[in-house]
Amino acid sequence: MNPVLVEAWRGDVVESFHRGAVAVVDGDGALVASLGDIDRPVFPRSAIKLLQALPLVESGAADRWQLSDEELALACASHTGEPAHTRAAASMLAKAGLDQTVLECGAHWPKNDDSARALAATGAAPTVLHNNCSGKHAGFVCLGRVLAGTQERRGFLTGYVQPEHAVMREVDAAIEAATGCDLSRAPRGIDGCSIPTYAIPLRQLAHGFARAATGVGLGAGRAAAAARLRGAVARAPFMVGGSARFDTRVMQALGQRVFCKVGAEGMYCAALPEFGLGVAIKIDDGNNARACEVVMAAVIEGFVALQGDAERDLLAGLSNLPLRNWRGLDVGRLAAHESLRRLAPRAKRTAA
Amino acid sequence: MNPVLVEAWRGDVVESFHRGAVAVVDGDGALVASLGDIDRPVFPRSAIKLLQALPLVESGAADRWQLSDEELALACASHTGEPAHTRAAASMLAKAGLDQTVLECGAHWPKNDDSARALAATGAAPTVLHNNCSGKHAGFVCLGRVLAGTQERRGFLTGYVQPEHAVMREVDAAIEAATGCDLSRAPRGIDGCSIPTYAIPLRQLAHGFARAATGVGLGAGRAAAAARLRGAVARAPFMVGGSARFDTRVMQALGQRVFCKVGAEGMYCAALPEFGLGVAIKIDDGNNARACEVVMAAVIEGFVALQGDAERDLLAGLSNLPLRNWRGLDVGRLAAHESLRRLAPRAKRTAA
Repeated sequence: MNPVLVEAWRGDVVESFHRGAVAVVDGDGALVASLGDIDRPVFPRSAIKLLQALPLVESGAADRWQLSDEELALACASHTGEPAHTRAAASMLAKAGLDQTVLECGAHWPKNDDSARALAATGAAPTVLHNNCSGKHAGFVCLGRVLAGTQERRGFLTGYVQPEHAVMREVDAAIEAATGCDLSRAPRGIDGCSIPTYAIPLRQLAHGFARAATGVGLGAGRAAAAARLRGAVARAPFMVGGSARFDTRVMQALGQRVFCKVGAEGMYCAALPEFGLGVAIKIDDGNNARACEVVMAAVIEGFVALQGDAERDLLAGLSNLPLRNWRGLDVGRLAAHESLRRLAPRAKRTAA
Repeated sequence: MNPVLVEAWRGDVVESFHRGAVAVVDGDGALVASLGDIDRPVFPRSAIKLLQALPLVESGAADRWQLSDEELALACASHTGEPAHTRAAASMLAKAGLDQTVLECGAHWPKNDDSARALAATGAAPTVLHNNCSGKHAGFVCLGRVLAGTQERRGFLTGYVQPEHAVMREVDAAIEAATGCDLSRAPRGIDGCSIPTYAIPLRQLAHGFARAATGVGLGAGRAAAAARLRGAVARAPFMVGGSARFDTRVMQALGQRVFCKVGAEGMYCAALPEFGLGVAIKIDDGNNARACEVVMAAVIEGFVALQGDAERDLLAGLSNLPLRNWRGLDVGRLAAHESLRRLAPRAKRTAA
């Protein structure tokens, strides 16, 4: 039974609450702090896009296609389908001599409401470029073009989302190298964008992100790739999320001191290079729209050396978030549970 | 600690799960079946709009303004802001000599995506009529016009959302009469549409809906009002929800044999007149978009005498819902927990 991590207050009453688990691990794999069951395998979903993008860089594909920071950040993104995102995805494809017809992620309306409405106003339908995973998939096919070598490129790319495909084998090898998890034995599901997702314990996911933070145990090529991707996201944080998104706001403020990435169903992973830590969070109920962000904010408050009032105020507002109704009245708040507040100082002492 | 009521499966793995509580009570207040803590006070939110609409009918306001079935159903609705909904809300106001400027619910974009996009395409902004509670609020001011008597009507209506206002006192008296809960002692919050919401145990909420189902203990005026509102919703189920909404689909299929109504934060209430039962459900995590509907479907399967394959197939599909990804691939399902399956037959025996 996992502990309560987030409380949704309305007035003076806890109206709803979210249980879950958190693991904070260092580069050597030592557990620095935890709450709840961190050994149950969970699907990381989009929270591990950083690890899934490692082969794009390590293979040389990112250099061969001269991908920009914006484009590399988009390869790690769950974006909101705003014009800058779709343009960057199209640009990645064009650089590799491809177009959106190769993408197998499916189409959906932009996650950003204004962009969805603006698109609707033109009478157009959404395309695969608007899919929040289009940058990740563009990265996959950019990698695939390099792996294909002299093979006919379209035929080689077909079915790149399947676990047996050369592209996905490279991607999954990177996840295995980072997390130490044998994916051939892990339960497998199909992700929203049709690639495989493997159930991995939070402890190992956090270790994977500690390795991405430190390079320790990752091998020189992947370590360099992780550092390059983290740098790209820090320089182009809008691309990893979008307007008003948690990941974008936090990385706009904190730069390379935090790499954090949300996933579906209440997942979150983060690399905290300052102290060489990795973080993995799962909310039991999968309510990713609110609870896991509050937990991530509290973890950042505890495990990052925040500087100045602006940084502290930003994170305090995200870990204890006012709730307003349709008339803008203050009706309650989403608050990190006290257990998360206790977790951090103890862990900091351990890490120090 | 409440039990798991719904499991979200991805492939062969339970990816996320939802805990919560359910109470099924008869018209005499006897507990027929339950799971979890049904004595913790919870905010019912929009799940009690049927009870909140009782004074509109009992006061004579519904007759005085000649409200139609569609309009009475809208007074009980959390609607999706489709054109039929906004037209009906505007019609209710016009019949009472009012217009949308008196409504204090706030504006938001239509919950129905197609309607939101169509509205955006016109360049218009949403109004209070698009608020999912606009029918309830139109009902409040239709009642208020009657309560005002000879008083200047605009001035009288101002602040009708406040707990001390005559309109809200009538509404809250109806909730007290149905549930037996003393609201003066209940924790109070502000709802999304700015009216008060009072924390009431599921046991008492379920009793309130059993009274609405049977009329037992409700008094002749309120009993008749409840029957009239249930009939109106059964004849106009599109108005209580909208396209593809659970409540609309279920009541289109089952008519007056079920009155069910979702609320924010994982709330659900239902009146099941066939066996004279009331139901109240709360999902701990407030994930109202999916979990409480699955629970409600399982409760209906257990406590309603479904007739024919069409009814059984509809409910079976809603209590064990396939999940598809952006390409339409079957990736998992949302399934009512076995404990809900065990709950129903035992309870049926008890109720018989």
